[in-house]
Amino acid sequence: MNGAHALIETLVAAGVDTCFMNPGTSEMHFVAALDDVPQMHSVLALFEGVATGTADGYARMANKPAAVLLHLGPGLGNGLANLHNARRGRVPVVNIIGDHATYHAKYDAPLQSDINSIAKGVSGWIKTSTDPDQVGRDAAEAVAAAYGRPGQVATLILPADVCWLDSTGPASPLPIPERSSVDPGRIGAIADILRSGDSAGILMGGDSVMEPGLVAASKVSAATGAKLIAETFPTRIERGEGVPAIDRLGYLAEFAQMQLSGLRHLILIETASPVSFFAYPDKASDLVPEDCEVHVLALPGEDSIAALNALVAELGASGESVTLPGASRPDLPSGELNSESFAAAIGALLPANAVVVDEGNTSGLFVAGMTAGVPRHDWLCLPGGAIGFGMPTATGAAIASPERRVLNLQADGSAMYTMQSLWTQARENLDVTTVILNNHSYAILNLELSRVGANPGPKALEMLDLNRPQLDFTAMAQGMGVSASRATSAEEFSDKLEEALNTPGPNLVEAVLPSVF
Amino acid sequence: MNGAHALIETLVAAGVDTCFMNPGTSEMHFVAALDDVPQMHSVLALFEGVATGTADGYARMANKPAAVLLHLGPGLGNGLANLHNARRGRVPVVNIIGDHATYHAKYDAPLQSDINSIAKGVSGWIKTSTDPDQVGRDAAEAVAAAYGRPGQVATLILPADVCWLDSTGPASPLPIPERSSVDPGRIGAIADILRSGDSAGILMGGDSVMEPGLVAASKVSAATGAKLIAETFPTRIERGEGVPAIDRLGYLAEFAQMQLSGLRHLILIETASPVSFFAYPDKASDLVPEDCEVHVLALPGEDSIAALNALVAELGASGESVTLPGASRPDLPSGELNSESFAAAIGALLPANAVVVDEGNTSGLFVAGMTAGVPRHDWLCLPGGAIGFGMPTATGAAIASPERRVLNLQADGSAMYTMQSLWTQARENLDVTTVILNNHSYAILNLELSRVGANPGPKALEMLDLNRPQLDFTAMAQGMGVSASRATSAEEFSDKLEEALNTPGPNLVEAVLPSVF
Repeated sequence: MNGAHALIETLVAAGVDTCFMNPGTSEMHFVAALDDVPQMHSVLALFEGVATGTADGYARMANKPAAVLLHLGPGLGNGLANLHNARRGRVPVVNIIGDHATYHAKYDAPLQSDINSIAKGVSGWIKTSTDPDQVGRDAAEAVAAAYGRPGQVATLILPADVCWLDSTGPASPLPIPERSSVDPGRIGAIADILRSGDSAGILMGGDSVMEPGLVAASKVSAATGAKLIAETFPTRIERGEGVPAIDRLGYLAEFAQMQLSGLRHLILIETASPVSFFAYPDKASDLVPEDCEVHVLALPGEDSIAALNALVAELGASGESVTLPGASRPDLPSGELNSESFAAAIGALLPANAVVVDEGNTSGLFVAGMTAGVPRHDWLCLPGGAIGFGMPTATGAAIASPERRVLNLQADGSAMYTMQSLWTQARENLDVTTVILNNHSYAILNLELSRVGANPGPKALEMLDLNRPQLDFTAMAQGMGVSASRATSAEEFSDKLEEALNTPGPNLVEAVLPSVF
Repeated sequence: MNGAHALIETLVAAGVDTCFMNPGTSEMHFVAALDDVPQMHSVLALFEGVATGTADGYARMANKPAAVLLHLGPGLGNGLANLHNARRGRVPVVNIIGDHATYHAKYDAPLQSDINSIAKGVSGWIKTSTDPDQVGRDAAEAVAAAYGRPGQVATLILPADVCWLDSTGPASPLPIPERSSVDPGRIGAIADILRSGDSAGILMGGDSVMEPGLVAASKVSAATGAKLIAETFPTRIERGEGVPAIDRLGYLAEFAQMQLSGLRHLILIETASPVSFFAYPDKASDLVPEDCEVHVLALPGEDSIAALNALVAELGASGESVTLPGASRPDLPSGELNSESFAAAIGALLPANAVVVDEGNTSGLFVAGMTAGVPRHDWLCLPGGAIGFGMPTATGAAIASPERRVLNLQADGSAMYTMQSLWTQARENLDVTTVILNNHSYAILNLELSRVGANPGPKALEMLDLNRPQLDFTAMAQGMGVSASRATSAEEFSDKLEEALNTPGPNLVEAVLPSVF
């Protein structure tokens, strides 16, 4: 058995049985070893950013990491933005970067580069494997490191000769790290604050925005009046009929500040203290009101559900009744296709148990409201802010959840970053419906241009305009083997969306929205 | 005037009047300042890898750097592979990375990352500009640093507040560094080696593979019998009717070793001593024959043309006659469309003064031979080996050379990395003809899989197969506003290529070649 075989067997034994890859020459022994380990499911991506984003989406839904296989420093660079997103979302990824053979590095061949320097910013754990007898152990360590807690990107740099040389064999899995418990003293202190009668908010992320956490937090809120807010871009949040509803903190600092205003205490659960996404002239970066104290109930990766349940007990709130959204759907819309009618169609048609991957950006304004009472579903956001996450994340979510329909709400500008994902969706025959929100613009940047106080002229506006030429996403999708259609009215969009959501396999509906220009 | 305005004015004064960009919020003041400096030509790319590759192609043809504007660490990651290629090709690029405002960094907002760590591997020069009064001087330094000599990527990290705060104004250009002269003693020593009667080869790169260097080297060869070889992937090489012909060193180590075998001396001109692109089990990394001595006539960036002319003088070879290829074209091909008939069509139809951007990979095997006697043209290769360079490099070459037809020979797998380039070609109405060599495979990896000694099974082969589903490049190009057609026979390809080469603006011909599978 060679090193590659030992590595893959170790991964599979540790439960990492899916690998998203865009390999090159230095990874050919890894690829050849796939046939030695039939349990490993290998999925080809046509671009590295697709592979890394797919691993992100997979792990969010599978609750375990996938492996990624990339080719040298440039391949890592191509995959870096979605690794950044995984890092910010605290998503576990086993990130394997093929490298030149150990003895070849000194020749400074054309593809030689400092992989460690590129990888370290996104990696909570990083190691170069240099011995085929140890590559199994290194892989087992990488899997345990990816689990974190919280989850993180674990990068294993894998020289080609470590793959091709004989190995003593695979390593046994290491224990998956447990979540740390929250100290009871901390829970008591938070209970005291909540009992004080001061105005308090609870900002929630991580595991706490799935149903059990939302139910417990709702009891806390019912007993104490604390205001519940989810972080701006949760990695995965559960919502819909029967799940306690929670507003998300606004992306725009002005809105977030309104949501937080008047609070004397802000209690954090698996999330960071709120700051502005970007800096703006004469605006605050720190969004916490001046006279508001910030407290931590659970750090990211700590057992926030247990902490919330303990807090419920401490407050004697277990009997509090929780208001749950009843079933409700908006009517099917008619007339102009715009952000509002588009959202109504989503609300009217979203199937039960769907997974929504939301890179709708400005066009998604009305979607949350229109889907509050639709059947239960998961919603995946963009915690890291690096655009181009939607299509690959939807791809990975579908691989992890073959029994569920994935709906990808996808802004046009962001779609152009990793659209090669559609090909993988076709190849793997995944139940993904992509809705392209085509407003022919980087609309978010038009907004940001005015928010930063810049005074744009025609040359500036030209840099935000996707109208010349217009992008035809229907043609592009068909070119990658995904059936696609275009809608220009609300009725047409509803019809095409309904058909798409009920047709097995991947498909795409291009929603032509009013141009920003 | 704010810092952004001062920066752009400084760039323009230093001759950097073209900027390829994919900006975000942190770059909005830069974008707004474009209207203050009408001399700056700003070109939008839909993906950062397009922006960086376009800057590479531009600089190769313009002989001066363009600027690139990218958005934070993830944007840099997306552009990193083509910056790697620029670094390896010694191409000057002024690489501007927008960052959060200086005071915002400490808040660790979602898009915060260590830009310096990602950038340093590709950057010969790197600086963070922290003062709007100094940003002009920093920009002037970046331009001078990009020129090198040799050329390099100069990275300027630009916090948002440095753009939006008031500035004392632009800085004057710094002198463009001169090429260093080669020491006459070195020329004398090389002349002695060449006179010795020992078998010698001259391996040429950089400026030396343009006509003046090729003419001088041919005289040296005529006088001494030295064998001339160009490096494997020259950044830019001049060839065709009337230009001394020179073979390139083979990509495959086995072929390169045959070309070098028997040499007692290998003289390097602006290139590195030849090494294998990748390591292979039981094969040499260093391709220089065991008993061959390596000498340097000119280091990269040194004045190799003057050195070659001095060598000609030293050898008394100025009167030597040089054999120049006469005009010759292959006949238009007929029958099956394959690597050979495809190459014949290129040879039959390549217009005078064309620029060929070659990412044809395995499909390009016969092209060099078929184009040896066609009208004079430039040929741009992939010195860094990171695929996805062809389409953006063709885009940049066309912007730098609006009077010339650019022909991009583009392998299918590599095309999928940076295909968003087509949209920029349409938007800028560039005279680029893209020929997609669609063999439905990562064919090079099929070759490499056997070369590394791996024994592939069906799962491994599946990872190299682009057949399921087949990619329809004609549809994808049309989706980005580029007219496109498909050819499945040699006659059809010839007809469509001829029409494409004679139609202004961008277009694409998809050449359907026999599948590798």
